[in-house]
Amino acid sequence: MILTVTPNPALDLTYHVDALEIGETHRVDAARSRAGGKGLNVARVVHQTGNAALALAPLGGATGREFERELKASGVPHALVPVSISTRRSVAIVDALGGETTILNERGEALAPADWHTLVDAAARLADDADCIVGSGSLPPDAPADFYANLVRLARDRGLPSIIDATGPALLKAAQAGASVLKPNRLELADSTGESDPVVGARRLIEFGAGIVLVSLGADGMICVTADAAAPVVRARLASPLVGNPTGAGDAGVAAVAVALVTGESDPALLLRHATAWSAAAVLMPVAGEISESYRELEAQLVIDRF
Amino acid sequence: MILTVTPNPALDLTYHVDALEIGETHRVDAARSRAGGKGLNVARVVHQTGNAALALAPLGGATGREFERELKASGVPHALVPVSISTRRSVAIVDALGGETTILNERGEALAPADWHTLVDAAARLADDADCIVGSGSLPPDAPADFYANLVRLARDRGLPSIIDATGPALLKAAQAGASVLKPNRLELADSTGESDPVVGARRLIEFGAGIVLVSLGADGMICVTADAAAPVVRARLASPLVGNPTGAGDAGVAAVAVALVTGESDPALLLRHATAWSAAAVLMPVAGEISESYRELEAQLVIDRF
Repeated sequence: MILTVTPNPALDLTYHVDALEIGETHRVDAARSRAGGKGLNVARVVHQTGNAALALAPLGGATGREFERELKASGVPHALVPVSISTRRSVAIVDALGGETTILNERGEALAPADWHTLVDAAARLADDADCIVGSGSLPPDAPADFYANLVRLARDRGLPSIIDATGPALLKAAQAGASVLKPNRLELADSTGESDPVVGARRLIEFGAGIVLVSLGADGMICVTADAAAPVVRARLASPLVGNPTGAGDAGVAAVAVALVTGESDPALLLRHATAWSAAAVLMPVAGEISESYRELEAQLVIDRF
Repeated sequence: MILTVTPNPALDLTYHVDALEIGETHRVDAARSRAGGKGLNVARVVHQTGNAALALAPLGGATGREFERELKASGVPHALVPVSISTRRSVAIVDALGGETTILNERGEALAPADWHTLVDAAARLADDADCIVGSGSLPPDAPADFYANLVRLARDRGLPSIIDATGPALLKAAQAGASVLKPNRLELADSTGESDPVVGARRLIEFGAGIVLVSLGADGMICVTADAAAPVVRARLASPLVGNPTGAGDAGVAAVAVALVTGESDPALLLRHATAWSAAAVLMPVAGEISESYRELEAQLVIDRF
């Protein structure tokens, strides 16, 4: 089972408007309401592709109840630990004419120390039955910076692979703790390491202790950097980028890596291919947390560069 | 007690951003969440000014629970009848730089016939203890067009005044049922009657059977038209319009009229003065459902025209 841990989940509300106009009042259909957060998206894709997933997240308040109801209806296995704050919201407004999506992401409220204990205890308990541990997404305000590093240690103590998709100090500490795979995007990597060149930034995370670093480059695909200094940096991409919904594409890539690691795959170049193909397959879907059935065909079409 | 009936209430979520940019992701503080809807705003102002209010509304779902919790905390007396649908949301995004507010109003879901019965029964029961009945705001989809007309009849049967703030066929039918006071804004009146001149539109509602029609003209104040064909049309306004938040200004005007009617005031010109002053006092407040304590001073400053 692939355990995904999402410390700062959100109730995702999506609105569709013909044309969003600032300062105007828009009459809209009810929001599509969905249990969101990067680890939730990972678990959804793992589940969709027929693999065992378990999504762990804290939840609270009326938004938390709505979050739980949607997640139950989705069929994705989950473990939700009650906390003292309300689950945050994220509002997406999709503009049909302009094709643009405007997003308001609530930062989330700080978890109480007791809430963190509950979440960490739940992760430790569920890790005993896991084959891989994934930590994804932002941390709530005032979070312990070593939350993801502790997840990595939980995995190492049990001989399990770990994948962390995070940013800032949480990413650096996860590297130092020896995460099996890190998957920042180019911007997060630059913000976290201060290195604008993604290869240089990725090497920094490797020096810190990470096993493999996959850096998503948006329409330019993804690169893979490993501890093997003699090995080339590998980049995978589609010859022509897909047009679609990029939200959750990185999460689908994390799901691909988790599924591959659990089946015993460890070749970095193959992990990169799977991650890039599943990411591309996510772009073809209207909502995050799903991939197109064409992911195998997309993988066969990848252009691979080594440098 | 002033009974306000809000058939299509909303959970109002308000976000503050520095500058709303279409197509961008904005990191925001948690939404201010509030029990909203025009009749709720009326009840809040009635309550704030030390008068007895009772806000009746249907509610359901997780949004309904959040709605109820905020309303309880506000101290405004309420009667919420459980229905089979989820309470709709309304999202307001306040742009600090541009000073503009962008709004997404969910239409709301259709109430089941059994839900309508529950709501109408509750209104009839509570009307027995009311001194005035107010019906405010949009109707949910597929609503009976005579819902507000039936409220007017409930009031008439009990010898009580009624005030309806509605639009379209619901406004026309409320006029035909003999509403004591109707308070559309200029645009709603034009849409409902097909008359672009607010005086002509208001006279149409009087012909249909309404007692008094107050038409809010935004920064141009408010006019009053009555069944007395010999009486002049009266307009009240401030010499220079106030800058502020117009949301809920009309609702504060309705609250002023309800409070005046309950205290035995019936002079249309005085009702107009109160309504205009309370509306202006609402513009000075950051949220709907509140008025500035300066409403008495504002009333003394009104410019009155008769034509």
